[in-house]
Amino acid sequence: MHILITAGGTSEKIDRVRSITNHSTGKLGKQIAEDFLANGHQVTYLTTPYALRPLATTNLAVLEIETTKELETVLIELFEETQFDSVVHSMAVSDFTTETSLTEDSFIEKLAEQLMKKTNLSDLSTLIEALYQNIDAISQTDQQEKKISSDTDRLLLFLKKNPKIIAMIRKKQPRTILVGFKLLVGVSKEKLIRVGLNTLHKNECDFVLANDLETINSNQHLGFLINPSGQSEVAKTKAEIAEKIVKNVEANWRLKQ
Amino acid sequence: MHILITAGGTSEKIDRVRSITNHSTGKLGKQIAEDFLANGHQVTYLTTPYALRPLATTNLAVLEIETTKELETVLIELFEETQFDSVVHSMAVSDFTTETSLTEDSFIEKLAEQLMKKTNLSDLSTLIEALYQNIDAISQTDQQEKKISSDTDRLLLFLKKNPKIIAMIRKKQPRTILVGFKLLVGVSKEKLIRVGLNTLHKNECDFVLANDLETINSNQHLGFLINPSGQSEVAKTKAEIAEKIVKNVEANWRLKQ
Repeated sequence: MHILITAGGTSEKIDRVRSITNHSTGKLGKQIAEDFLANGHQVTYLTTPYALRPLATTNLAVLEIETTKELETVLIELFEETQFDSVVHSMAVSDFTTETSLTEDSFIEKLAEQLMKKTNLSDLSTLIEALYQNIDAISQTDQQEKKISSDTDRLLLFLKKNPKIIAMIRKKQPRTILVGFKLLVGVSKEKLIRVGLNTLHKNECDFVLANDLETINSNQHLGFLINPSGQSEVAKTKAEIAEKIVKNVEANWRLKQ
Repeated sequence: MHILITAGGTSEKIDRVRSITNHSTGKLGKQIAEDFLANGHQVTYLTTPYALRPLATTNLAVLEIETTKELETVLIELFEETQFDSVVHSMAVSDFTTETSLTEDSFIEKLAEQLMKKTNLSDLSTLIEALYQNIDAISQTDQQEKKISSDTDRLLLFLKKNPKIIAMIRKKQPRTILVGFKLLVGVSKEKLIRVGLNTLHKNECDFVLANDLETINSNQHLGFLINPSGQSEVAKTKAEIAEKIVKNVEANWRLKQ
């Protein structure tokens, strides 16, 4: 098989010196890649600058990106050339990217100026409509600063949603065995599996690995590998998670042949 | 001499999985440390997880922090034990830390609700005052989410100013030879030196290294080492910057003996 693995975490620039980063050590992605390689498969590994990488070997190609936009571009290029047998999308992708940043003074000044033009602010629905319109206009038109000045006590960052990469993967590779990931924080096992299954159906994944930040540390990594019928296999370490992903992807692939 | 060098860039958590990071490779700090070590001085090196480090040697102690708050705590501890002959503060410290994050809907709902309680919104100064009060209240009272939900098209992040670390360094180590750094983006040489000198006076530094992101790349690093009389020495590479800092700190130290 030819497997594409994404790992690490994307960063979104706020200005020339700052960015918003999604943390991911890349340890799990590295383990999954090494397990697929050990079983004789070919791996294309897409990662980010500070994440760990698999040990170099002949069947491995490593590519690096930083932002979600770059990830999208590289994936589209890869998908035009290659039909991957499986895509394991473990990269922590930023849900949001920076739209603009404003000092509190500047934000209030712009907002007040616009609100004053409205005739009837004492009507709640008029006020709410005006606020939506103005925040929309303010966040879209203001130009990004090269480096945010520190001459303000409070700064407002406006973030807008990034396109969903996993939906694009399924669209561009309709026949690939797609493994998605869902990370939550401090939820019950039931909720974790429910949300993971929802992610699976929404994004047309073949498997989703659902995990919770509070049950991940240097010694354990609790994960539930969920399939479309809602059944799940539990794994207690990164090694077990990698093993179960490889085993299930291989079994699924054999069924397709 | 016993020198404290700070290098790398701090990160501020947004939630459990995301943070705002100030980029810094740590290359310049590493070079400065290695030059001081080569001249027989003792170096305490305070850095961040992803920055480069000086080569390990007997006169070098390396400490690691992530956030500005941790930097402050470690510095206060160090200053209680040690009187440093010089502090070279090259770390890129976040000017802002996360106060709260809100979805656009939640922000507008809260704001509108509060504004409706005001009697005279058609008066500009009343409106502005109400906006300040409400943004203040909203950003201070709302609790931080464990992991920001991606179920919103726009997210507002409220950032508040961090305490100025360099001012604290001078206060706790009144006799140390203090070297500050000022990074601007895309300004004239005159403005760079003027702003650098202003930083020097405001923070009672003995020297400030002023540089501009647009004249830094893998081959060059233009920097102006400014002294309190406003004179500056120009350096064209990281090696030259390090050499000039070491030379000037040593000369200043000899004058004090």
